[in-house]
Amino acid sequence: MRALVVHEVLPSAAEHGAGGEVVDGSRRVTYADVYRRALRLADSLKKLGVGRGTVIGVMDVNSLRNLELHYASSMLGAVILTINFRLAAEDLLYTIRHSGAEWLFVWEGFAPAVGKLRPAFPKTWVWLTDGSEAPEPGTPTCAELVEAGAERLPDEAGRVQETDPFSIFYTTGTTGRPKGLLYRHRDMMLASLGILHHLALHPGGASAGSRDVFMPAIPFFHIHGWGTALFVPYLGAKLVLPGRAGPEEQLRLIQDEGVTWTNMVPTQVHMLLEAADAAGVQRLSGLKVLTGGSPLPTGLARQMRERGVAFSLIYGGSDQLATSISVVPPGIEPESAEAWEALRREMMPLSMVDVRLEDEEGRTLPSDGRGIGRVLVRSPWLPGGYYKDPERSAEAFADGWFRTGDLAVMNPSGAMYVVDREGDAVKSGGEWIATGVLEALISEHASVAAVAVVAQPDDRWGSRPLAVVQARGEVTEEMLKAHLISCVESGRLARFWIPDRFVFVDALPLTSAGKVDKAALRKTLA
Amino acid sequence: MRALVVHEVLPSAAEHGAGGEVVDGSRRVTYADVYRRALRLADSLKKLGVGRGTVIGVMDVNSLRNLELHYASSMLGAVILTINFRLAAEDLLYTIRHSGAEWLFVWEGFAPAVGKLRPAFPKTWVWLTDGSEAPEPGTPTCAELVEAGAERLPDEAGRVQETDPFSIFYTTGTTGRPKGLLYRHRDMMLASLGILHHLALHPGGASAGSRDVFMPAIPFFHIHGWGTALFVPYLGAKLVLPGRAGPEEQLRLIQDEGVTWTNMVPTQVHMLLEAADAAGVQRLSGLKVLTGGSPLPTGLARQMRERGVAFSLIYGGSDQLATSISVVPPGIEPESAEAWEALRREMMPLSMVDVRLEDEEGRTLPSDGRGIGRVLVRSPWLPGGYYKDPERSAEAFADGWFRTGDLAVMNPSGAMYVVDREGDAVKSGGEWIATGVLEALISEHASVAAVAVVAQPDDRWGSRPLAVVQARGEVTEEMLKAHLISCVESGRLARFWIPDRFVFVDALPLTSAGKVDKAALRKTLA
Repeated sequence: MRALVVHEVLPSAAEHGAGGEVVDGSRRVTYADVYRRALRLADSLKKLGVGRGTVIGVMDVNSLRNLELHYASSMLGAVILTINFRLAAEDLLYTIRHSGAEWLFVWEGFAPAVGKLRPAFPKTWVWLTDGSEAPEPGTPTCAELVEAGAERLPDEAGRVQETDPFSIFYTTGTTGRPKGLLYRHRDMMLASLGILHHLALHPGGASAGSRDVFMPAIPFFHIHGWGTALFVPYLGAKLVLPGRAGPEEQLRLIQDEGVTWTNMVPTQVHMLLEAADAAGVQRLSGLKVLTGGSPLPTGLARQMRERGVAFSLIYGGSDQLATSISVVPPGIEPESAEAWEALRREMMPLSMVDVRLEDEEGRTLPSDGRGIGRVLVRSPWLPGGYYKDPERSAEAFADGWFRTGDLAVMNPSGAMYVVDREGDAVKSGGEWIATGVLEALISEHASVAAVAVVAQPDDRWGSRPLAVVQARGEVTEEMLKAHLISCVESGRLARFWIPDRFVFVDALPLTSAGKVDKAALRKTLA
Repeated sequence: MRALVVHEVLPSAAEHGAGGEVVDGSRRVTYADVYRRALRLADSLKKLGVGRGTVIGVMDVNSLRNLELHYASSMLGAVILTINFRLAAEDLLYTIRHSGAEWLFVWEGFAPAVGKLRPAFPKTWVWLTDGSEAPEPGTPTCAELVEAGAERLPDEAGRVQETDPFSIFYTTGTTGRPKGLLYRHRDMMLASLGILHHLALHPGGASAGSRDVFMPAIPFFHIHGWGTALFVPYLGAKLVLPGRAGPEEQLRLIQDEGVTWTNMVPTQVHMLLEAADAAGVQRLSGLKVLTGGSPLPTGLARQMRERGVAFSLIYGGSDQLATSISVVPPGIEPESAEAWEALRREMMPLSMVDVRLEDEEGRTLPSDGRGIGRVLVRSPWLPGGYYKDPERSAEAFADGWFRTGDLAVMNPSGAMYVVDREGDAVKSGGEWIATGVLEALISEHASVAAVAVVAQPDDRWGSRPLAVVQARGEVTEEMLKAHLISCVESGRLARFWIPDRFVFVDALPLTSAGKVDKAALRKTLA
């Protein structure tokens, strides 16, 4: 009996898969090669003492090294701590300590930045390298370990249970310490494959199948690249690992390797399209993008469409994993303008996922396409809580439901439209104003490069929206208000949602995840 | 946390699904209706004493009643015995007794045939009816039970575990007592969804997605209609339940309801095409058929192609569940003649499924596209053995592998081509002759309606092939031999495979599953 454990994906892909290759820089290998290399790496790690339950911190970009380490770790029953290398030093140290990591595997490209961490792991440090030369003598490199290992499946592999932990990740909110999430093998398998299956089963912009060529641009440290580190090998499709590639290099990979599918937060998409403009590339036809993590500005969505780039939105996060992906509802032609509009709003839960909207009193909101409510989620892969953090677990997880902290509208179709973070939304006169929706409308103005709406305390209304605008040309508060009044007139906006004030800035502050840092904004503006 | 239990499929489909309807005769309901009706049925059954572990025998065609009963039974933790109503009376009685069935649910359409069974279940018999009138007064009908129940999820539903049994089915070989298979919830979920996912992820003739309209023509008693009773609701797509429909009625449903996807054994496909001919329907473009269970004759495959009917082959069975489905390999255009040929031979294992070919000495055969070996299968949903039958379990299941009793060739791509049943194949001079392959070649002759090749004892070679031919016109042994010699000359056949003898019959004997009954043939010819 084979179980839903991560390393069981690889032998099937290697022996009976769709035959795709794995590309990392100038290296091209088959899934059979990846499997053999992972076996050898596991054998070496076992000799070093890595075993069942050993937590190993991994700090790397999306590389073949990182992929192999995923599967070798799984074979040993070890647990990967996927480290967000963009974290502040203090948070980085906290998460490494809190996770109980005994080993650190660090890409040599990060060598200049990790000097302070190095002494804490004098004998349990591995450099992730492509060549055999290490940044320091005497310290093992992954290239050496792969070389030295025997090509045999460790006995531990057969003892790994579905309910054993596979990985840990720390999510950083805007307040408090990072929160740890421990993902079990079956959670990560079901959630990752759930994304792929949804993309294959329902019509959408980011449809996926074994003939696609995948380039995960979401870092593996973030839920294993939104599941791609598992689901692309499971599918056996061609996988292009972009490493440290910036937008220009991503563009080159898309063109040279025939990439048809990628995942990116909107900021990454924006940068890719800018790189295409700079390179004189008018169209990227055939490219499909799964995007999410922050609201998709209307202007960016339009630019994608003009360039032949299709998209679906994904909703989820590190504490709930995948919840829903946008679809083209029945009755709408997949390539039409209506479909494109639907793909920005019609988030269909993955199969077996249940979503509920709750009002202030905890009552379930009807699916009327109007009422804004708090999003609660239940799914087969929902984590049970935060790692070693019962207090904050109890706040967010109860009765099998996760309180996402997001606000949404439920459409009559059962699809959901996420409009805001509860903490970001403005409550004006007892009514929600969804800043995400407002931002999308403001960003439709041609002279707006980016915009963030934040709540400002207000004596009369409780709070009122303030728009912080990064302009790309001549624009005034009056012009933006006039634009929003036209939105009111066409029925797209309630009049009381129009911000009282507009502030213009050179650049919006971003978090380590590339999202607009609204907490920082609020602090600046307070 | 939601688990991989069958009834968890329905609420998601009802609330957030793709919005398909369920059609049974003149009735049209939504998945939300199906869910509510299943809740009410479960409530009534609970009051009657059906509970965790109660085995309920179900004898019905593919109907809304049967579908609802699947989900109501799951909610109570009861176990469905799906009864092959084509079984011989003696086998029927044996399987009902052996399974420990306490209840029998029988479609009123079978009333004339089940008189002998009725007294054995004096107080635990339910008539499956559409109207409220029962075939006999005082006996409950499912229509009444749905009517009487309250619309609430029974407490038992939350206590059902993934590893609890969901259903039992008895497989009837050509020798010995029927063998029982007990399917756990997670086995049936993973295997059923695995079929759907494979069809959605890989290019093939029977591709499937939420915009398809599904008409399962494989009876639900056979692994729940090859998983359709689970995977179509999971997908939320339109489901057309054909009930007792024969080929003419199936044709009408396909045309009137816009059916795009069905599953059928080759015999059913043949009858459907004959019905289309009789009705003057030249083309059935857009119809996709998943077929399997017995070899697909070349002539039938060609007829399908000429009529615009696409197909994929599925390989599996009640004792191994789904194992592989044919695909169009990379590099071949999906609509080409080459693709059509590949779809008859390139069986790609479902993800997470491992397949191994073994020679006489138990050594693994290389994937060379030539050597014929015994098929062994390992998968996440493999049953552990036969129900209450340790002896025959030990023969077939060992070390997590199932010895399928089939013979196949492994292609270099890792795809498999199943050529014969081990018991049917001819061993001539120590070499396998695959009767399935031989039958396909013989059936290419225009005057052959059907053909079966069986082994005949031979003093010199051990055994030799004998072809039993059902002709559709003037044909002689010489003509068929000449045809096969041309196959030898074009490299498609080894000369020693040509049968020594040809026998002509009016009709080939069929088993209850609609396959050619080779055991009966061998007996007749002995």
